[in-house]
Amino acid sequence: MNVLVVYAHHEPKSLVASLKNIAISTLQAGDHAVVETDLYANGFTPVANKYDFSTLTGKHFNYMLEQKHATLRDLGFAPDVVGEIQRLQEADLVLFYFPVWWFSEPAILKGWFDRVLAMGIAWDGGKIYENGMLLGKKAMVVAVAGGPEEYYQPLGKHKATLKQILHPIHHGTLAFCGMDVLEPFLVYSSMNKTKDEYSSLLERHRSAIEQAVTRPRYLSKY
Amino acid sequence: MNVLVVYAHHEPKSLVASLKNIAISTLQAGDHAVVETDLYANGFTPVANKYDFSTLTGKHFNYMLEQKHATLRDLGFAPDVVGEIQRLQEADLVLFYFPVWWFSEPAILKGWFDRVLAMGIAWDGGKIYENGMLLGKKAMVVAVAGGPEEYYQPLGKHKATLKQILHPIHHGTLAFCGMDVLEPFLVYSSMNKTKDEYSSLLERHRSAIEQAVTRPRYLSKY
Repeated sequence: MNVLVVYAHHEPKSLVASLKNIAISTLQAGDHAVVETDLYANGFTPVANKYDFSTLTGKHFNYMLEQKHATLRDLGFAPDVVGEIQRLQEADLVLFYFPVWWFSEPAILKGWFDRVLAMGIAWDGGKIYENGMLLGKKAMVVAVAGGPEEYYQPLGKHKATLKQILHPIHHGTLAFCGMDVLEPFLVYSSMNKTKDEYSSLLERHRSAIEQAVTRPRYLSKY
Repeated sequence: MNVLVVYAHHEPKSLVASLKNIAISTLQAGDHAVVETDLYANGFTPVANKYDFSTLTGKHFNYMLEQKHATLRDLGFAPDVVGEIQRLQEADLVLFYFPVWWFSEPAILKGWFDRVLAMGIAWDGGKIYENGMLLGKKAMVVAVAGGPEEYYQPLGKHKATLKQILHPIHHGTLAFCGMDVLEPFLVYSSMNKTKDEYSSLLERHRSAIEQAVTRPRYLSKY
């Protein structure tokens, strides 16, 4: 299986990095091919811009329509976008690793969605959800929140579960493009882990990754 | 009233731009002081980075803790972050203008939240929601979606209303910092407007802005 890991954390000693590293070693031990996109280390640009295209319509700038135009002109995107599109197209499973900031992914990862999941590449008119262009690929979110789990309840301070909060990514992004969205791996209270809790978290993640490859559990069917 | 407009669209001829422009002229006609942050035109950097700080803890890089550290060191942030923090602190009302991309704001605006709403400035330990540090300020989201309204229903294709989809911004960001979140101004099917619909949309927006200033309608109380 070809696995793309999209990783959005600065710090190699962070919990997010540790989870990502154990996933990669687990997958490699299972003879899967892993490619990693380390967004911060690569200096990935998250801003959608006209420089993202080697060809432009010349009309009022509508990013989505420029994406569509570029797909009809022999992948007329900037080199970094082309590279990520190719990695995505080759992947059977895509894993996303990030800390939860403002109930969402950091901007650098949002920009990966904005720029790489282009109209004409990942979706198109009439080609969404069950007809999405990434049909057959699996995706899994690994998200680390600082706040405690009791805040993430419909009647808690955050007025929603973390899974509900991730609806824009799970449903509005990954499932929108036709991907099979696996059960996410979610961590709460990230800064208050004992050494034992930290180790058992990594063990749980190893087993979640093994299951993601061999025995997909669907979050839901679209 | 001091109003900060945070605007995230490239194209001066877009519907998002037209809505923003009519808001500014309406506010200025009412003798309110308006400051605009035009994220794309300013080349705003949305990537949270160690260069955002003029002082660092020297510990493992945790962005949130570096923010807190910087607030204790005479606003030790990069100049662009300091500028936006000062604009925010002076504002009584903040308006956010953006197109809906992937059930969310574009990365350039997500990065404004990540970098400007710093720990120690907009919130802190124990200072969230009803104790948030931006208490007394009002905020309003103006979001333009390409998809039709019937998709944005709990039983529609998107499996949620646009208001539910904006929970990370409304609740998890603005209310989290203590702001009073006004009823959002939402547009659907943005690319299929007749000239008349377009005009009446702008008129409706003018009146929503007048109400935002004079007669706040709360989305909810936290």
